[in-house]
Amino acid sequence: MSSSDIFIGETIGTAILILLGGGVCAAVTLKASKARNAGWLAITFGWGFAVLTAVYTSAPLSGAHLNPAVTLALAIKDNDWGNVPYYWGGQLLGAMIGATLVWVAYYGQFHAHLTDKEIVGGPGAQATTAKAVEAQEQGAGPVLGVFSTGPEIRNAVQNLATEIIGTVVLVLAVLTQGLNDKGNGLGTLGALITALVVVSIGLSLGGPTGYAINPARDLGPRIVHALLPLPNKGGSDWGYAWIPVAGPLIGGAIAAGIYNVAFA
Amino acid sequence: MSSSDIFIGETIGTAILILLGGGVCAAVTLKASKARNAGWLAITFGWGFAVLTAVYTSAPLSGAHLNPAVTLALAIKDNDWGNVPYYWGGQLLGAMIGATLVWVAYYGQFHAHLTDKEIVGGPGAQATTAKAVEAQEQGAGPVLGVFSTGPEIRNAVQNLATEIIGTVVLVLAVLTQGLNDKGNGLGTLGALITALVVVSIGLSLGGPTGYAINPARDLGPRIVHALLPLPNKGGSDWGYAWIPVAGPLIGGAIAAGIYNVAFA
Amino acid sequence: MSSSDIFIGETIGTAILILLGGGVCAAVTLKASKARNAGWLAITFGWGFAVLTAVYTSAPLSGAHLNPAVTLALAIKDNDWGNVPYYWGGQLLGAMIGATLVWVAYYGQFHAHLTDKEIVGGPGAQATTAKAVEAQEQGAGPVLGVFSTGPEIRNAVQNLATEIIGTVVLVLAVLTQGLNDKGNGLGTLGALITALVVVSIGLSLGGPTGYAINPARDLGPRIVHALLPLPNKGGSDWGYAWIPVAGPLIGGAIAAGIYNVAFA
Amino acid sequence: MSSSDIFIGETIGTAILILLGGGVCAAVTLKASKARNAGWLAITFGWGFAVLTAVYTSAPLSGAHLNPAVTLALAIKDNDWGNVPYYWGGQLLGAMIGATLVWVAYYGQFHAHLTDKEIVGGPGAQATTAKAVEAQEQGAGPVLGVFSTGPEIRNAVQNLATEIIGTVVLVLAVLTQGLNDKGNGLGTLGALITALVVVSIGLSLGGPTGYAINPARDLGPRIVHALLPLPNKGGSDWGYAWIPVAGPLIGGAIAAGIYNVAFA
Repeated sequence: MSSSDIFIGETIGTAILILLGGGVCAAVTLKASKARNAGWLAITFGWGFAVLTAVYTSAPLSGAHLNPAVTLALAIKDNDWGNVPYYWGGQLLGAMIGATLVWVAYYGQFHAHLTDKEIVGGPGAQATTAKAVEAQEQGAGPVLGVFSTGPEIRNAVQNLATEIIGTVVLVLAVLTQGLNDKGNGLGTLGALITALVVVSIGLSLGGPTGYAINPARDLGPRIVHALLPLPNKGGSDWGYAWIPVAGPLIGGAIAAGIYNVAFA
Repeated sequence: MSSSDIFIGETIGTAILILLGGGVCAAVTLKASKARNAGWLAITFGWGFAVLTAVYTSAPLSGAHLNPAVTLALAIKDNDWGNVPYYWGGQLLGAMIGATLVWVAYYGQFHAHLTDKEIVGGPGAQATTAKAVEAQEQGAGPVLGVFSTGPEIRNAVQNLATEIIGTVVLVLAVLTQGLNDKGNGLGTLGALITALVVVSIGLSLGGPTGYAINPARDLGPRIVHALLPLPNKGGSDWGYAWIPVAGPLIGGAIAAGIYNVAFA
Repeated sequence: MSSSDIFIGETIGTAILILLGGGVCAAVTLKASKARNAGWLAITFGWGFAVLTAVYTSAPLSGAHLNPAVTLALAIKDNDWGNVPYYWGGQLLGAMIGATLVWVAYYGQFHAHLTDKEIVGGPGAQATTAKAVEAQEQGAGPVLGVFSTGPEIRNAVQNLATEIIGTVVLVLAVLTQGLNDKGNGLGTLGALITALVVVSIGLSLGGPTGYAINPARDLGPRIVHALLPLPNKGGSDWGYAWIPVAGPLIGGAIAAGIYNVAFA
Repeated sequence: MSSSDIFIGETIGTAILILLGGGVCAAVTLKASKARNAGWLAITFGWGFAVLTAVYTSAPLSGAHLNPAVTLALAIKDNDWGNVPYYWGGQLLGAMIGATLVWVAYYGQFHAHLTDKEIVGGPGAQATTAKAVEAQEQGAGPVLGVFSTGPEIRNAVQNLATEIIGTVVLVLAVLTQGLNDKGNGLGTLGALITALVVVSIGLSLGGPTGYAINPARDLGPRIVHALLPLPNKGGSDWGYAWIPVAGPLIGGAIAAGIYNVAFA
């Protein structure tokens, strides 16, 4: 793979990942969406099939990492770091493009939601209902949740541990794909398995932090949230932003270590 | 493939697609259905597995486009336009047959629903309840929703953009299938992947417009809605009808362009 | 395949099918079940994965028809009737074994449900609550629904049409499996596809009649319902019993005809 | 496979299985989880995809039994008992590690849940609300349910029968995998099929007892529940603990017998 194919593939793939992953959060969260309140199962299947679509589409170009933690783990496993910048660059750019496309696709829904007095309080972003005040105090209201993750209980040690554990599971499954598919050319099936592993992590380990398990998935959209001209959007919760970056990278490194010790 | 196999395959396949896709909308919407109020996840899985069933069944005959936007994109990609009329003709005819079969399978449910005073107001199609009045004013009540799509917020620019974005994702996944499955003959798995991509688009991008992402899927059943002798059926919302035709065609063309630039 | 392998395979496979299919109805319906009120999506996935499990397990022995309508369609398609009695016999016997195993697995739940005064009225099967009276008048209360299907609106013509349409879709997908999997030996994937087709039919065409689409699936458990010593069980609704037998057989024959005309 | 690969593979695989399986129970049950009250479908898909992730990851090392009943059945089928201790040892150790990781990942949620007066009554584990009293009297409150299974209706004969029936279905599907995948190397697809069989058993046979169908899945986490310093955790219900051990082992043996008689 050429470095330009890698960069383009990761950009396209991560854009699709975040368009569909952020999209399901918008669909379930925002006012005037047909999917409003469709529930946690919809969120987790939505993210899982976002992975499926993104991996399937970009695999022919870049191998479809779409996640800096996966790129890090593969670099450690193979001790080959040359393409890491192209992967990481494409992933961050793609995530920002994807988050912007969510805003385009749900333009009217964002506006309707953020100008609803019951939801955000009166005009001028002064929250007046108890629910809106609580959302602003938490610094991570439902609209930020369309872009980035946030914890239910703020505890840096636990939040970091949860992100690490989830990412170890994800990356171990990605790394063992080579052992499972050896020789039968079932790359396509690998995309499906990875997708369902992501559904699994969402259902099982998503409760405390919303399962970033991918630094680009969280950081790129958070930057876009900070930049977009959304009315009453509230803060972008930068105090939490390091956890969904550091946790997945640590998890990816641990998974590579486990792989090199137990599987290689 | 002969042009008669193409026409017959697309007719059968699109009839199954709309029978099952419109069917799940009827099942979840109409009175006296066991699936009533089964929710958005049921709708999206229902449409996705409708695609699976239809693609799997018709692929041996016509390759299973079942969507004028897919046919357009493949014609652009290969610069081969000879069979486009057979594909498009079969797709529109099949969609109309499928919508008619939904009416047959849910005959009693349509009647029970459309003559329920709580739902449509009194006899003679004069809406008397607030809910029924609102449905008629919108020009796209729940029964039209069994046939065709409609937006939650009417905004031609956003509605068109949402349909374009969804279709680009769909068609990119269809076009990269050839790259993913090269040489291992896993056409069957391709049907499954495409189905789950459609579930993904439904969950993630279906909130604003109900995701037509297929001109035949929307136009064929809308024509049938206009023709069927349903009591109190309301208008067929022809003012919106151009968007789910134009949006997917534009999206298909854009996806073919991206494919030819980045993947070919 | 020997005729004894066919008979044993169909008996085991259909027993598993009905154990799991009837089981999900018991799980969602009966009192004191952890899955109570899990909804229509649970029912449809439950039946679909019941098909998956049953087909996968019995395919090595008998090819896993598990449905007299499938056996009929394959006999018409190949004009080969020699093994039909072994298939049909195993299917009916297996369905009765499966329904009996549901009763064993949910023994306490059946008793708790059927002796709950809120549900079935006072002792002696005299329904006293409005809900219980309604259930008895319909002749197809929720407990019969664990065994056999029943329509939401009684209309023999529509009910028959709905069962025919659903079975045509199912059998067309089964018949085209040979065309899709030709030469790549993916029988396993065929089990998965068939299962998801059944989920699709359930979601999309199950609303009016509960989608028997299989004579053995309905008749075998109905016989067991009539025989089991369940308190306050109500009638077995024999007046409806011919529809889920005749409809699927007609549908299977129509699908074989479509296949022989359009696909062979 | 070396015995150390078996032990390590089963330890890693069963740890992932219980981390994700116990995780989804924590996610749906505990206070301050984003997935709270996501329902039975989330539980059953969560356990199924836990199996997928765990089998896929550990299959290259140990063949991924992850269940003493599966190990027993394969030993009976092949009359080869040499590696049973390594399998069983790894499975029990892995299950305990997995349950401990659930506690880490949901640390704050466990504390918030178990110190909520509405849920467990006042401080000092004295239940004061009716709901909390009931939970303590049952000896199997929702928090124990994150670790181990418990019946809705206590009846040793029925509970044992339900666990036996569920395990027979699971193990028959595992044993026939070799017949289905012969020669096409689709081990990866086998992981997916097994996962969906587990979803099926959960949906269809999980209602009465919560479907242990695996002695290690129940016993390992129950030991961890007894050891962990959880406030107000209540008893570990050791009186029930033999059923989810004995039932699955009996079921595995029965399935091996059926296989050897009907399929071999």
